[in-house]
Amino acid sequence: MSTTRTSGSPTPRANARGERARLRLLDAALSAFATQGFHGTSTRDIAEAAAMSPAAVYVHYRTKEELLFQLSLHGHREIRRVVETALGRPEPPAARLRGLVADYTAWHARSHVQARVLQYEFAALLPEHAEQIAAIRGAIEAMFQGAITDGVDAGIFRIDDVKMTSLALLSLGIDVARWFRPGGARSPDEIGNYYGEIALRVCGHPGDL
Amino acid sequence: MSTTRTSGSPTPRANARGERARLRLLDAALSAFATQGFHGTSTRDIAEAAAMSPAAVYVHYRTKEELLFQLSLHGHREIRRVVETALGRPEPPAARLRGLVADYTAWHARSHVQARVLQYEFAALLPEHAEQIAAIRGAIEAMFQGAITDGVDAGIFRIDDVKMTSLALLSLGIDVARWFRPGGARSPDEIGNYYGEIALRVCGHPGDL
Repeated sequence: MSTTRTSGSPTPRANARGERARLRLLDAALSAFATQGFHGTSTRDIAEAAAMSPAAVYVHYRTKEELLFQLSLHGHREIRRVVETALGRPEPPAARLRGLVADYTAWHARSHVQARVLQYEFAALLPEHAEQIAAIRGAIEAMFQGAITDGVDAGIFRIDDVKMTSLALLSLGIDVARWFRPGGARSPDEIGNYYGEIALRVCGHPGDL
Repeated sequence: MSTTRTSGSPTPRANARGERARLRLLDAALSAFATQGFHGTSTRDIAEAAAMSPAAVYVHYRTKEELLFQLSLHGHREIRRVVETALGRPEPPAARLRGLVADYTAWHARSHVQARVLQYEFAALLPEHAEQIAAIRGAIEAMFQGAITDGVDAGIFRIDDVKMTSLALLSLGIDVARWFRPGGARSPDEIGNYYGEIALRVCGHPGDL
């Protein structure tokens, strides 16, 4: 007995093909946005880089902004996972904050191309998409503030303004994506570790530097 | 006796008119680059925003890149002046570093639109222009390193890596341009002062926080 499929339920093979096409498009969009900026990139540029026709792009992503949103969503979820993993380690507050800043910073060095698009093209998102991304950013910021507050409550951090301190530590990591280039004098992990020590100092902990 | 002028020496009035047109164009280019990115902006967009014809733009700036370069040059010279002024104060090393980071950070908050274009469109400059800007950036970085080294030599800063520490302090200031919005909870000077205290901590100085 043969199986009949409606057009609404593609075969597993068509599914896998569609998934590969979507990944190829996301990859092409990331390179194009990183090089020419979101506004300087056309859907045609992305289609060409992915070796597809513009019509084929629309099958998977209705607009160029949808591609940016999916890249942003994927990237911000990845960062949130890095932060959650760092905070999930059973360590005392100082070691946890140091590990958090080290991992967050190393991610921004390692994924510097992706990070630049996430950070610098945020303003190009549609309001409803920007809101979803802002919610993930808010969760990440809250986790940084929590890690700082833990140290304050434990009496080992001395700071005046948890929010400003958290912003400063996030800035340290994010700005690495702007200047980092592979093959430089320091690896992502070395930069991360140095910034982890800096984070302890910023929180008024003597650290081990 | 009447004065004869060749076409190579315009009248003072024509000079002033030309200067006003150039400033209007730089201003229009800055807004367009900040909103749509360098690659997403056409010379026509800039001409329209400055209420001029594209042909009139070419009289003053041969290319869109020339406009970006002039904006970058002007902005980086302004930052260098801020740094030189801060370091010119007759103060001991800790107060000087704190003032340097405070002024540098406050500038990036106050001039956040300009700063974002300077930082995020650097890659769009022609190689010979990028080289000139990189030289000014190098001078600024050297002044930060000098201010840190002064404190190390005076025995009041304890750090392992002057270059990395200087990069971190520059990052703190630069990244403020990414998130700062006027009308927020803190003024540019308040953010600058907080970051000045953070800088002392990063250098292993107890500070006054």
